[in-house]
Amino acid sequence: MTDWATRLRGLVDGALDAVLPPESIPPQALHGAMRYAVFPGGKRVRPLLALAAALAASRRMNGPGHDGEATVRRTMPCAVAVELVHSYSLIHDDLPAMDNDDLRRGRPTVHRAFGEALALLAGDALLPLAFEVLSAEEARRLMGPEAAAATVHELAHAAGSLGMAGGQAVDIAGATSGARAPRPEEVEGLADLKTGALIRAAVRCGAIAAGAGQREFYALTRYAELFGRAFQVFDDLRDMAEDGAATFPRAMGTDEARRYGDGLLAGAEDALSLFAGDAAELSDLAASLALGLA
Amino acid sequence: MTDWATRLRGLVDGALDAVLPPESIPPQALHGAMRYAVFPGGKRVRPLLALAAALAASRRMNGPGHDGEATVRRTMPCAVAVELVHSYSLIHDDLPAMDNDDLRRGRPTVHRAFGEALALLAGDALLPLAFEVLSAEEARRLMGPEAAAATVHELAHAAGSLGMAGGQAVDIAGATSGARAPRPEEVEGLADLKTGALIRAAVRCGAIAAGAGQREFYALTRYAELFGRAFQVFDDLRDMAEDGAATFPRAMGTDEARRYGDGLLAGAEDALSLFAGDAAELSDLAASLALGLA
Repeated sequence: MTDWATRLRGLVDGALDAVLPPESIPPQALHGAMRYAVFPGGKRVRPLLALAAALAASRRMNGPGHDGEATVRRTMPCAVAVELVHSYSLIHDDLPAMDNDDLRRGRPTVHRAFGEALALLAGDALLPLAFEVLSAEEARRLMGPEAAAATVHELAHAAGSLGMAGGQAVDIAGATSGARAPRPEEVEGLADLKTGALIRAAVRCGAIAAGAGQREFYALTRYAELFGRAFQVFDDLRDMAEDGAATFPRAMGTDEARRYGDGLLAGAEDALSLFAGDAAELSDLAASLALGLA
Repeated sequence: MTDWATRLRGLVDGALDAVLPPESIPPQALHGAMRYAVFPGGKRVRPLLALAAALAASRRMNGPGHDGEATVRRTMPCAVAVELVHSYSLIHDDLPAMDNDDLRRGRPTVHRAFGEALALLAGDALLPLAFEVLSAEEARRLMGPEAAAATVHELAHAAGSLGMAGGQAVDIAGATSGARAPRPEEVEGLADLKTGALIRAAVRCGAIAAGAGQREFYALTRYAELFGRAFQVFDDLRDMAEDGAATFPRAMGTDEARRYGDGLLAGAEDALSLFAGDAAELSDLAASLALGLA
């Protein structure tokens, strides 16, 4: 996996750098905070999912005529946009009114480094930037206007009250945390909104950008839903610190949660059977998740 | 003015009601907070600007073949989207980390009524809902996918770091407030970002939805820029309470600010000369601004 992923991660970082206004442009502090949130970043899993899904769909749809570099270029607005939405969500999740976290990836969170107001505004600016990128002239030309608009719709829905923002609202309501162990279906519902919705949108945007047919689109959606839930399971297993949080290990025990996560990933791999050998990158991403690398 | 504006305001409220998830759908508290922020709402100036600009452009482009009702239907996603962005921005502006306001339109602000976390999330959900509306199948069919994508781009740019969010960042940096009176050009720059960008986007989205030609598009843009700045001038004149804020009356004195606002509106009216009698609603909106009605 490392070869293709490292290369694409570099392209994604370059594209993110190109769409974020430089710190030299006013308001400088805001642009500084936005860049602080996006760079150096994490594993860029969501952009990789978008690009990997597009490559799989494009190979399937175009056969020997498939041009991987063209597919990557066409899908890059999606890759950038999903990472911008992810970055915005981390800033707002860390705010004192939410999780009140001081550290993120070993550095002070945006509000600790820039103050609460600028952190709020940096998130407020990164979110629309994602839609600006997906609807820019370049994206409309590369994907076609209908597909560009469809990716906007996909991502906007995932970010909204029936997706990520809704998941956060359920989480803070605390209906699933507290003294009793959460029920597995409660944890699932929460994970599907909080982390699943954006992962699903990343894969589906990549599929849209690559012109996936209906069967391919649904197979990729299935892959994304299983991958997204597994992502949360393994994330919970790595980070078992939070007392009382609605996590999979708390709901079903550590051993069972690991078995459950492995089963989800096996299902995700199954969902790729339609693609025969054409979805190697998506298989790699699923495998690396089980190994704790993604 | 009242007749057409009252009628269109009713249609806008109906359309907002249709796109906001009902409070009965989970997460109920989040949907309740979103609706609390949007209803009953204010004068809906931005949606009216979008619809009025579309009517002017459509009459100019289609002459006797102009169908006002079809234009209103085609532009309604824009009208709804700009109001959703406006509503989101009010919630976040009122938060303790920003203006820390307890009241808005005579009622408790969203964070006073629902708590800070839900207020943050209600804003975070209203913002992408705007782009979801503009890119939905219905909007793509009514406006065409290219125009739908173009309205997304227009509104996303206006909401971002070089528009509204940027204006808020400049405002909290306080570079233009404090002991000395702000310079007029400082107040102008701030107003153009904080309030001007969204008003400009409202008018331009309406023009895009109606298929305005290039000359019409630029005339409407000019109208919007002058209207937007005048809007802030008259808003400042009505609300002279804030000590030390970067307002037009503070920068140039009350009498001069009123003269300046009148001059801006005269310029906005001039920008409509291309439309002869075809921009009556936009003229009405400018006139009502001077009278303190918009």
